[in-house]
Amino acid sequence: MNWQTISEQKSFGGTQGVYRHNASTTRCEMELSVYVPHTQGAEGDSTSKQLPVLYYLSGLTCTQENVTTKAGFQQFANEFGFIVVCPDTSPRGSELPGEHDSYDFGSGAGFYVNATQPPWSAQYQMYDYIVKELPPLIEQHFPVDHKRCGIFGHSMGGHGALTIGLRNPEQYQSISAFSPIVAPMQCPWGQKAFSGYLGSEQTSWQQYDATALINNGHRSSHAILIDQGGSDNFLAEQLKPELFTQACEEKNQPVTLRVHPGYDHSYYFISSFMRDHFVHHAANLNTKN
Amino acid sequence: MNWQTISEQKSFGGTQGVYRHNASTTRCEMELSVYVPHTQGAEGDSTSKQLPVLYYLSGLTCTQENVTTKAGFQQFANEFGFIVVCPDTSPRGSELPGEHDSYDFGSGAGFYVNATQPPWSAQYQMYDYIVKELPPLIEQHFPVDHKRCGIFGHSMGGHGALTIGLRNPEQYQSISAFSPIVAPMQCPWGQKAFSGYLGSEQTSWQQYDATALINNGHRSSHAILIDQGGSDNFLAEQLKPELFTQACEEKNQPVTLRVHPGYDHSYYFISSFMRDHFVHHAANLNTKN
Repeated sequence: MNWQTISEQKSFGGTQGVYRHNASTTRCEMELSVYVPHTQGAEGDSTSKQLPVLYYLSGLTCTQENVTTKAGFQQFANEFGFIVVCPDTSPRGSELPGEHDSYDFGSGAGFYVNATQPPWSAQYQMYDYIVKELPPLIEQHFPVDHKRCGIFGHSMGGHGALTIGLRNPEQYQSISAFSPIVAPMQCPWGQKAFSGYLGSEQTSWQQYDATALINNGHRSSHAILIDQGGSDNFLAEQLKPELFTQACEEKNQPVTLRVHPGYDHSYYFISSFMRDHFVHHAANLNTKN
Repeated sequence: MNWQTISEQKSFGGTQGVYRHNASTTRCEMELSVYVPHTQGAEGDSTSKQLPVLYYLSGLTCTQENVTTKAGFQQFANEFGFIVVCPDTSPRGSELPGEHDSYDFGSGAGFYVNATQPPWSAQYQMYDYIVKELPPLIEQHFPVDHKRCGIFGHSMGGHGALTIGLRNPEQYQSISAFSPIVAPMQCPWGQKAFSGYLGSEQTSWQQYDATALINNGHRSSHAILIDQGGSDNFLAEQLKPELFTQACEEKNQPVTLRVHPGYDHSYYFISSFMRDHFVHHAANLNTKN
């Protein structure tokens, strides 16, 4: 069977699970975590209740485990009644040339694109994995209501959430991000990744650049929330959230950027503002607490 | 200088720090974490405000890092205005015979006793480290008010919190524990540890056995809170909380034992009930939120 339960543990009333499956898009076994909140159905009819769902995309070097054990989202997922899906950040288990040599390219650094350049193109199809392969798989195993679906993430995963959300506004009706890479075409992390995965022709890069997507007319139907640590070491060189908010302002995409003085790029920052993201998505998705 | 800052990161408005110092009791460098909440002094006079403090003792195999990154206590420490000190679980950096061979003895498993048996007696003085060495060191570096001081912990650290709290009720005015070893003289973990650290003469073990301490007349001035996962794999063989609550009932020590169905021994369990422990200590210590 193409679905293996690695662990299920009770957390804040719900169940935090870790699962493994054979992914056809990335041609390897992928691990992911899924949190299912404790829900109380009307008149005891809890089994048929469909729950809203959030996809959380993680940053460079991470697996599903970092956010699952460190971000404290279970408390708020249970409070607001969200299923939360946390995928891995790249294909795993291969030994492509140089695949494990850099923290910002190859394993742990899939950048949520569909690679077109060999040897990466054979497996590094993380965009399709997230957008096409995961949702039906999640529907098969959990009581999700994809008509109420949001996407968020951190750093490289914030980039993933913004680009995937903007390109698929009907599939992901609500978007937020922690410390996202908002303009990968204009920062070293993004230029390295896109050169490697997509080649030198930069027109193909634009579909994976949140700022370019806004400039090219893509929109989210709700305001986008971005939280950013003011003392984040990557802020000036890699993240540059002002490039995104400027584009949003020019193109009339509502966005809220909050810069929090003193906070860095870590899970201590993410967890401190995690609840606000559930408030944001619950409001956008009209989800009852 | 005998105090080194390894890191300081903003978390939930306060500061999560990790520090290193040369410990005289354990004759080695020890790491610990300290969280300082964001406080608002009256009329801007925040610098002189002394804060209540909680000591959290961790379980087998842990360092300060596990609870600091996974338990989510910073949210509640800031809400209730507590400084939280998380020490390591044993001396580090030595190579005593067999010191690193078992998960339940030696490094990562100090059991919060003063060892009397060589070679452990030279360094494994974790009781004195927690009770005597740490408090003045913490006072030197942080604005703590030890007149409002509680102690709590998990598993082996729950054992430590119960025994240290019961033996020093004026120093630790409030006690709680997650999944504690309550009767180490009556379980394999405790028997192995006490035999190794304290020798075969069992009268010397009683001072480190919470149930024996209650039976021998020790008391805490406030009710003790114990949370326990009902699906904890260690419950029947190692933890046995009913031995402690029976002794408390017979000896009129107020205690609340809550067994939570479905929860295991992990940080998912601890974090799920962490806020209740802050409520407990804040009430016992008459701390204003």
